[in-house]
Amino acid sequence: MERWIKKHLPRLVSELSPCRNCPVANTEKVANLPGQKAVVEQLENLVGILFPGCHGHAPVASESAEGVLRRLLASTARQLRDQIQRAFAYQCEVEHCADCGSCREQATAAVITLLDQLPAIRSILQEDIVAAYEGDPAARSTMEIVMSYPGLYAITVQRLSHALYQAHVPLIPRVMGEHAHARTGIDIHPGAQIGPGFFIDHGTGVVIGETAVIGRRVKLYQGVTLGALSFAKDAQGHLIKGIKRHPNVEDNVVIYAGATILGGETTIGHDSVVGANVWLIHSVPPFSKVYNQEPKPYIKPATAKPSKKPAGRKQR
Amino acid sequence: MERWIKKHLPRLVSELSPCRNCPVANTEKVANLPGQKAVVEQLENLVGILFPGCHGHAPVASESAEGVLRRLLASTARQLRDQIQRAFAYQCEVEHCADCGSCREQATAAVITLLDQLPAIRSILQEDIVAAYEGDPAARSTMEIVMSYPGLYAITVQRLSHALYQAHVPLIPRVMGEHAHARTGIDIHPGAQIGPGFFIDHGTGVVIGETAVIGRRVKLYQGVTLGALSFAKDAQGHLIKGIKRHPNVEDNVVIYAGATILGGETTIGHDSVVGANVWLIHSVPPFSKVYNQEPKPYIKPATAKPSKKPAGRKQR
Amino acid sequence: MERWIKKHLPRLVSELSPCRNCPVANTEKVANLPGQKAVVEQLENLVGILFPGCHGHAPVASESAEGVLRRLLASTARQLRDQIQRAFAYQCEVEHCADCGSCREQATAAVITLLDQLPAIRSILQEDIVAAYEGDPAARSTMEIVMSYPGLYAITVQRLSHALYQAHVPLIPRVMGEHAHARTGIDIHPGAQIGPGFFIDHGTGVVIGETAVIGRRVKLYQGVTLGALSFAKDAQGHLIKGIKRHPNVEDNVVIYAGATILGGETTIGHDSVVGANVWLIHSVPPFSKVYNQEPKPYIKPATAKPSKKPAGRKQR
Repeated sequence: MERWIKKHLPRLVSELSPCRNCPVANTEKVANLPGQKAVVEQLENLVGILFPGCHGHAPVASESAEGVLRRLLASTARQLRDQIQRAFAYQCEVEHCADCGSCREQATAAVITLLDQLPAIRSILQEDIVAAYEGDPAARSTMEIVMSYPGLYAITVQRLSHALYQAHVPLIPRVMGEHAHARTGIDIHPGAQIGPGFFIDHGTGVVIGETAVIGRRVKLYQGVTLGALSFAKDAQGHLIKGIKRHPNVEDNVVIYAGATILGGETTIGHDSVVGANVWLIHSVPPFSKVYNQEPKPYIKPATAKPSKKPAGRKQR
Repeated sequence: MERWIKKHLPRLVSELSPCRNCPVANTEKVANLPGQKAVVEQLENLVGILFPGCHGHAPVASESAEGVLRRLLASTARQLRDQIQRAFAYQCEVEHCADCGSCREQATAAVITLLDQLPAIRSILQEDIVAAYEGDPAARSTMEIVMSYPGLYAITVQRLSHALYQAHVPLIPRVMGEHAHARTGIDIHPGAQIGPGFFIDHGTGVVIGETAVIGRRVKLYQGVTLGALSFAKDAQGHLIKGIKRHPNVEDNVVIYAGATILGGETTIGHDSVVGANVWLIHSVPPFSKVYNQEPKPYIKPATAKPSKKPAGRKQR
Repeated sequence: MERWIKKHLPRLVSELSPCRNCPVANTEKVANLPGQKAVVEQLENLVGILFPGCHGHAPVASESAEGVLRRLLASTARQLRDQIQRAFAYQCEVEHCADCGSCREQATAAVITLLDQLPAIRSILQEDIVAAYEGDPAARSTMEIVMSYPGLYAITVQRLSHALYQAHVPLIPRVMGEHAHARTGIDIHPGAQIGPGFFIDHGTGVVIGETAVIGRRVKLYQGVTLGALSFAKDAQGHLIKGIKRHPNVEDNVVIYAGATILGGETTIGHDSVVGANVWLIHSVPPFSKVYNQEPKPYIKPATAKPSKKPAGRKQR
């Protein structure tokens, strides 16, 4: 090993050194990039601010709860600003801005926007928690939901990252969203607009696209997709970015596991129910119940050993 | 940033301070809550006790294996008892117990119950490992299964958390289960009853509900749901909690990817096979083979460039 | 607790001490096993070498980028060699080799093979990044893809672990692959052969088997399975390991969410499109478009409150 290191490392280093012609790592200023771990650390701090003492190793001591909160808010503000400034500076470089003098001010403004929304976000999350408790017979207490439900974690991160998305912060909202996706299997784009009282049960495999708009008290199960039907292209054949391509889901809709709803012009009217595994690419009016024709799997009678139940019994 | 912090932080802190009227963080005793990280740490210790040297950075040195085990068992017992005591105390407060004098004793009893079951749990897990090795052509060794298979990790955590669930420990079994869910995409409620020789291959998207009962040598693939068909409500329209709502799966059943089996009165008879993507809400007798009618996707002949194979060839 | 520990711990320790008759932990040399955390740490170092400064807490300072790279390469080489040597030694013991004298040389050779491939792997990953940018309207910059897209992370880990798989390293490629699976919900076996320009969007629930062969510029969505149709067994009824059992996907194929393609003799001809949820177990020629008959869910007209849209409206 040591011989190989001595002999071949210099060549390998020069082959791997940041190259100027490749789409990534093509910048000398790579040191200025936001760090994923730093972003996730600040995200966890924000979650800790919203739910004091409910996560993490060392719960807050009650007598100093306000002091802890003050310190946590101030340090999160400073460090998140630093990361966001790096993200603006990166964007500035990619877009060949004349001058990045405003990156610091933009970053400060974005952080203030987020922090000012925290009380409102917590209040919306309370409605999400109540929706989970009332929607899941397995839930024993609201604290169980706060401490363990992946659906609540995913929507908490989405509501936080959505505030930064609205403030046009590059990179960081998506890093936050993909952290939640990695942890929960729930992939909600930071751009989605989601009303209060939102509950996702189980959640693995859920995909909610950037331009989806979801009303109040909506309930989803695992594997639901609110996705794009097709992608518009420009004259050069490149995808057009930023147009509405994901569905609208109105108030009080329930969507069961594995249903797929696609298209920016598709609206699920309020108080509708969409059954499991339904494939839906057109709008349905309010109070609809959308179900697949009842599937009739073929049940082959026992061969290895005859069962006492009538042979050829079919699934109704 | 600093100006904003100085001016606005006090207001934000007071808006975010633990509130008395909201469903979470409505307690001065939040400091007594179990910590997720502490619970996960003890869970990892338990896994390390079951599979010594197979996980983690620093494998056990063979000459002191018993000493390491002794130290690990004692420290896990003490720390897990502390976390469980917090969980009982939280429950006690939520339910307005007159007095929580017994939380410590209850916690000690629960930990002892779990530890006493460890040899039996390890022996059942050996059968799970053998089932994985014999059920997966990609498995090269049993150690590969122990070190990397998500299905084994999920069932290991479930067997541990199930012991605490049976001892009526609040919060903690679900925190353990959701940790495994986050890591594996496999969501098994700690309440489920699962026989030995259980193997889940790939696993992402599997959901097994609280009241499911699974026999011996059952094999599942990714995306299988053993779920509830509907939720019973009481006269006030609230969900009734704690009733049997998930299926029974008898011995030697194989359930292929994406199958959905629902309902507390649904029983899959022993030695049955349930095909991929089947939707099943009624019981089937032993030795059944349940398949969807063979799907016939429409295959549009090549348009961009004719293929040499006969046009209009259909999928059989 | 303390009384129980004093009285019962010795018995529990002896019951749990590494046993000679069970399929795991049946060796005194357990101390020689590779550690999962150590393997994952070296994997993250390799990812950091490929994308300098794009991941992790402390980005590389530009002035010393080459120095950091040199140090990181040398330390990764040494530590990965140590882990791989343990894996070869474990395999040697399992297979009752006469002598494990060559484990160290085999490990050194495997590490050199991997390191020598790093420049080529990075160059292929650049094509993957471009494919993601051109294939996803939500992608704002290539850096967003590098920093947050689970599909890129999964294919990065697969390309690295595939090099070790080809060098016949036991245990470690699969530990790396399952780390990526845990983080992304994308389960790609290290054995799969995958061409450049590969993009998986969203990704949760994707399964790609050991013997799959995928061409250039292939695009998959969440929940796609490239799996085995059935397992061949030998005369004793044991699974035969190592035969071709997963499909071939030729260049420029797009496979939409939830499609299942099975079997080692199934080939998806180049430039084909496989629609969402399609179930395919036979080959299709180049330029095919494979879709399910358009599903027609039943839409029950509003009952609770009549909608103004025509009653009985059906999904087309």
